[in-house]
Amino acid sequence: MSSCWGEKIKISIFGESHGKGIGVVLDNLPSGEKIDMNELLMFMGRRSPGKDKTSTPRLEKDFPNILSGLLNDTTTGTPLCAVIENTNTRSQDYGEMLRYPRPGHGDYTGHIRYQGFNDIRGGGHFSGRLTAPLVFAGSICRQILKRKGINIASHIYSIGEICDTPFNPVKVDNELIQRINHEFFPLVNPDCEKDMRDYIESKRLSGDSTGGIIECVATGMPCGVGNPMFGGVENVISSVVFGVPAVKGIEFGTGFDITKMTGSQANDQYAYDENGNVITLTNHNGGITGGITNGMPILFRVAIKPTPSISVTQKTIDLIHKKNTELVIKGRHDPCIVPRATVVIESALAIALMDILQI
Amino acid sequence: MSSCWGEKIKISIFGESHGKGIGVVLDNLPSGEKIDMNELLMFMGRRSPGKDKTSTPRLEKDFPNILSGLLNDTTTGTPLCAVIENTNTRSQDYGEMLRYPRPGHGDYTGHIRYQGFNDIRGGGHFSGRLTAPLVFAGSICRQILKRKGINIASHIYSIGEICDTPFNPVKVDNELIQRINHEFFPLVNPDCEKDMRDYIESKRLSGDSTGGIIECVATGMPCGVGNPMFGGVENVISSVVFGVPAVKGIEFGTGFDITKMTGSQANDQYAYDENGNVITLTNHNGGITGGITNGMPILFRVAIKPTPSISVTQKTIDLIHKKNTELVIKGRHDPCIVPRATVVIESALAIALMDILQI
Amino acid sequence: MSSCWGEKIKISIFGESHGKGIGVVLDNLPSGEKIDMNELLMFMGRRSPGKDKTSTPRLEKDFPNILSGLLNDTTTGTPLCAVIENTNTRSQDYGEMLRYPRPGHGDYTGHIRYQGFNDIRGGGHFSGRLTAPLVFAGSICRQILKRKGINIASHIYSIGEICDTPFNPVKVDNELIQRINHEFFPLVNPDCEKDMRDYIESKRLSGDSTGGIIECVATGMPCGVGNPMFGGVENVISSVVFGVPAVKGIEFGTGFDITKMTGSQANDQYAYDENGNVITLTNHNGGITGGITNGMPILFRVAIKPTPSISVTQKTIDLIHKKNTELVIKGRHDPCIVPRATVVIESALAIALMDILQI
Amino acid sequence: MSSCWGEKIKISIFGESHGKGIGVVLDNLPSGEKIDMNELLMFMGRRSPGKDKTSTPRLEKDFPNILSGLLNDTTTGTPLCAVIENTNTRSQDYGEMLRYPRPGHGDYTGHIRYQGFNDIRGGGHFSGRLTAPLVFAGSICRQILKRKGINIASHIYSIGEICDTPFNPVKVDNELIQRINHEFFPLVNPDCEKDMRDYIESKRLSGDSTGGIIECVATGMPCGVGNPMFGGVENVISSVVFGVPAVKGIEFGTGFDITKMTGSQANDQYAYDENGNVITLTNHNGGITGGITNGMPILFRVAIKPTPSISVTQKTIDLIHKKNTELVIKGRHDPCIVPRATVVIESALAIALMDILQI
Repeated sequence: MSSCWGEKIKISIFGESHGKGIGVVLDNLPSGEKIDMNELLMFMGRRSPGKDKTSTPRLEKDFPNILSGLLNDTTTGTPLCAVIENTNTRSQDYGEMLRYPRPGHGDYTGHIRYQGFNDIRGGGHFSGRLTAPLVFAGSICRQILKRKGINIASHIYSIGEICDTPFNPVKVDNELIQRINHEFFPLVNPDCEKDMRDYIESKRLSGDSTGGIIECVATGMPCGVGNPMFGGVENVISSVVFGVPAVKGIEFGTGFDITKMTGSQANDQYAYDENGNVITLTNHNGGITGGITNGMPILFRVAIKPTPSISVTQKTIDLIHKKNTELVIKGRHDPCIVPRATVVIESALAIALMDILQI
Repeated sequence: MSSCWGEKIKISIFGESHGKGIGVVLDNLPSGEKIDMNELLMFMGRRSPGKDKTSTPRLEKDFPNILSGLLNDTTTGTPLCAVIENTNTRSQDYGEMLRYPRPGHGDYTGHIRYQGFNDIRGGGHFSGRLTAPLVFAGSICRQILKRKGINIASHIYSIGEICDTPFNPVKVDNELIQRINHEFFPLVNPDCEKDMRDYIESKRLSGDSTGGIIECVATGMPCGVGNPMFGGVENVISSVVFGVPAVKGIEFGTGFDITKMTGSQANDQYAYDENGNVITLTNHNGGITGGITNGMPILFRVAIKPTPSISVTQKTIDLIHKKNTELVIKGRHDPCIVPRATVVIESALAIALMDILQI
Repeated sequence: MSSCWGEKIKISIFGESHGKGIGVVLDNLPSGEKIDMNELLMFMGRRSPGKDKTSTPRLEKDFPNILSGLLNDTTTGTPLCAVIENTNTRSQDYGEMLRYPRPGHGDYTGHIRYQGFNDIRGGGHFSGRLTAPLVFAGSICRQILKRKGINIASHIYSIGEICDTPFNPVKVDNELIQRINHEFFPLVNPDCEKDMRDYIESKRLSGDSTGGIIECVATGMPCGVGNPMFGGVENVISSVVFGVPAVKGIEFGTGFDITKMTGSQANDQYAYDENGNVITLTNHNGGITGGITNGMPILFRVAIKPTPSISVTQKTIDLIHKKNTELVIKGRHDPCIVPRATVVIESALAIALMDILQI
Repeated sequence: MSSCWGEKIKISIFGESHGKGIGVVLDNLPSGEKIDMNELLMFMGRRSPGKDKTSTPRLEKDFPNILSGLLNDTTTGTPLCAVIENTNTRSQDYGEMLRYPRPGHGDYTGHIRYQGFNDIRGGGHFSGRLTAPLVFAGSICRQILKRKGINIASHIYSIGEICDTPFNPVKVDNELIQRINHEFFPLVNPDCEKDMRDYIESKRLSGDSTGGIIECVATGMPCGVGNPMFGGVENVISSVVFGVPAVKGIEFGTGFDITKMTGSQANDQYAYDENGNVITLTNHNGGITGGITNGMPILFRVAIKPTPSISVTQKTIDLIHKKNTELVIKGRHDPCIVPRATVVIESALAIALMDILQI
């Protein structure tokens, strides 16, 4: 592992924020899958910045140039590579050395990891911009999954302390999924939007930022996929999801709150429904028992930390003079990446499910 | 993946609860590492049941028979295999078919996954008993890590709603680590023990169970190991930790609560300490930024769901007559596995760190 | 990789020649596969020494003790572990250091690789004895493959300069396969046996040894499995086959001799046969084009070097006094391992085909 | 595996012959490695067609556009992606279906593997053109290896029946390596060139083709790298080398001819040389014993089949009308790819050695 991922499907992501381009190779995709480019661009658009005040006003044209693996909009089955050009690279920054690592970013850890040779401009390979090829890859996968009856969606569960209505863990309405799949600010209860935006705007005005929680679901997963131990559905999903910068936690089903329940409350009891299908009456396990899907919705929540790029003065170090100092980060930054991150988490889930289903 | 794990080190766990034996193969261990068998058995003892009222009174002799890879208590560098015999297998159960899946267990999902052929006796390969070889493997790894200055510990962060004092995220005292490494009921503040035990006992008396949260730490990790994206420290740790049955969530550093902070609160600001080492003044990121260690303690918490084995009547299905029914599980069971699970989580961390460090 | 192998199926082999035991874990086997233990033991018997004068007269009881993964002789789908006890371990040898590395063996390279900590008794993990668990694993796999119409066989293509009749590359008779599957000295033309045995015996009498070539075939493989580039059928087969000690070369179809042909001779031209199936008129490519099966027999040959254990005086070094010296190896050894190795190569192929077919 | 390869280093190759572009991602390269672009282009030039009469006169501008992973000609340590544009794509061919599979090519097997959806124009992903990114990747790796004292070279061992002088297996002269590293038609004995070229030209004139054998060497490898069993040096090298189209066999050291030797001839006996280094007096094992390097040159030969593209009439099938037919392939083709393939095999070796050395 590193920037490659997968056992059946293989995803290899490359690029640096201010290099020539970023992109992804998807190997071992099934052949003959029609890709709806408009839908794919819509999903990529949800991640793009500049949509409104919650995100950075930089303009990016994140158009994926597909070099291989697609013929007549249909997967050939051989590796699919997409490249997104970086348009706002600034050559004058070349050769600039890291001096003042930004708190909360990968500047310092990357500097040590790569012995000072990594491209630090704009965060380099650590940049949130690298989620663009992740969304590209995930959007290919989710179209293939959708054809098998599997639908993915997420919403902004919370921004700071302001919470949306959670998904119904036992049944997520398909109309709801369709609606929020197309929204830049996806919410179960749209009435929360104003409070959340006001809160984000208040952080922006004070040069600060906020985080939040994303709740994500997949419906239509067949029962009986996944594995006990290390090949479990939770293991596989979390091994992709933590690849999204700023994620600091993941919980499935009732998650951390399940620890406050008793076994008799937490156990998802079985029943046949009116159609003779096996269901569970509750879904505290998030659709997964013993690492294997039970046919109920796969449900999890992800903690997104506040954007580390803030304009408030921060303590840091001077790596050249080896002394303590202070840092003010200039430029305009996302006060909250949670809305843009929803489609990134959905994409991570889509990639994970391809591997879990051995498609 | 499945019951194998690892890129550099390779762990392959096998066995079923009532088969002949369970065990593990560790491939690619470094050669020449002296193993202290007494310490290893002490760690395995912390996982063994029958210590007190919080766990099942079954007697097990979990003595690992090392078949290969160790000569004069020193690793040879070729695969190390340990087998733990199952002594209480009951042959009369042979051939029994799954009829009434137990809620919260892997019975039903395993039945579908393996098309009815898996060994269901005692949970088979899904049994918590399979954590014995995991602790064996982890205890080998942690001795190697310790020699490199890396120490691992965990405590019972909470049982139900009753909470221990958290670790100090910036500095975990080495004496504390040594103390709780040897405890069956590890707590930062031992005064919590009575309340926690009383709560567990109350659940046991009502035939019910409870879960809890384990907080785990590794100190002494060098700065600059791990990778951006999918090879990040969080990804690797969580891909092992979710292999422990009953884990439903993981959070690093401040975890889900970081979403309620602002960026200026959440960013771990840098400073040189009195010895000229780079530190962060807080540790909300749990020692990991951009997927890479920053030299601060690796800190995470894991949610353990209540033991699904309870003697309360539960709704389930009759898979033979395909109708709804009820189930009462007989026998004595752990009302709470959290104390025994602490060393399992520590072991999962040790295995993950071996791979992250490419030892 | 190392002593683990596989993407879909995972094989982990462990053990040292004079340790407590050797064995293998097979992970990700399909569930519900009935295993014929008598046939499996027959295949393992073909590898066992002591059958006749071509092999060492040591007695071994290579009975595999299956610890997990098999219930009522049927695969459960969870990891299958088999252990073979080592009965002739001699504890007095403990702690003996490597001093005079045997030419042609892994003694010296293993000594450097493992910094002197590996178990050198009897070759340790480098011993040909480690092919016993490989044959066990392959014999499980070939029973599963046979049920899908895929049959595997091999014969002694040559011993020294004495050659058997090659397989007909276009069609290998099923009766021939059945016959040689049960033979300790498998030959297409049994008339070669006397010459070959006489040649081996002459080498034995002079304290020397000989090698030979094994030709191996799989019939019934479907067309269209495998991958271009690194996931090709040749890549996968050779990555297992070179795991068999003493293999120094592999060639598919016409192999090295294809280089002396012209394209018009070497190209396997297509035709529909009388049943409307696509065939090739020749099989110079060994059933594989572009890394992918074409439905013709998979055919390859493997070069087995002469047994390095000989009683002739050889030059070697004294690693303690760091000077040149001579060595005479005592004990009785196989003058030729080729007959016993046939079933090992068949087993390696069976394991490779399981992965190629993603069973 | 598939078009991805590697455990430590990860290579992901993409592209189709007539798509927009082809390329490669190298993940997990060490940081801080200076890349000499001129030397890299020289190696890529050796693979490029159009140099002389032995190869196709098509003009290609195989200039690698490096999108990421390189800053100031130095590796950043994050994924390095290079794209080579395809300039002679012809859009009018779009949508053409495979009707007459060319014998010896991957047309038919790819058609079945990808259910008719793969890009067949120019061979698609099966095209020899895909070796361009392989040479790019290998040329990056060999520069890193060279800095560690490891040098790689190969020569045309034979064309048809015409043979060059073999490498001295015990010691390959460094001047020889330097010389043939820069040659389009690398030979130990340049006097063979005329005969080989005449033979190739005679095949070209008759619309036919020829194959040959490439002998490849790596000097300077440290003793003690590699692993027993599946992680052996032979396994790893062959798992990359068979990814080169047209390779049908590989043999290490004396290879298939070792089977005709006795043990006393074949065993490489040990000695200390004048400098106190351990050497072997012969090198029949090609520098590898027990899967592990012994410090002698790594030496192997590879069989390259005759180019399947010939203008002689061949039998094939009509996949639309499902009947036997004949085919004449138009256009100009390489009568012999062996000279161009030398640098491809060297590149495959370089990639394999990076992984073996865990660089």
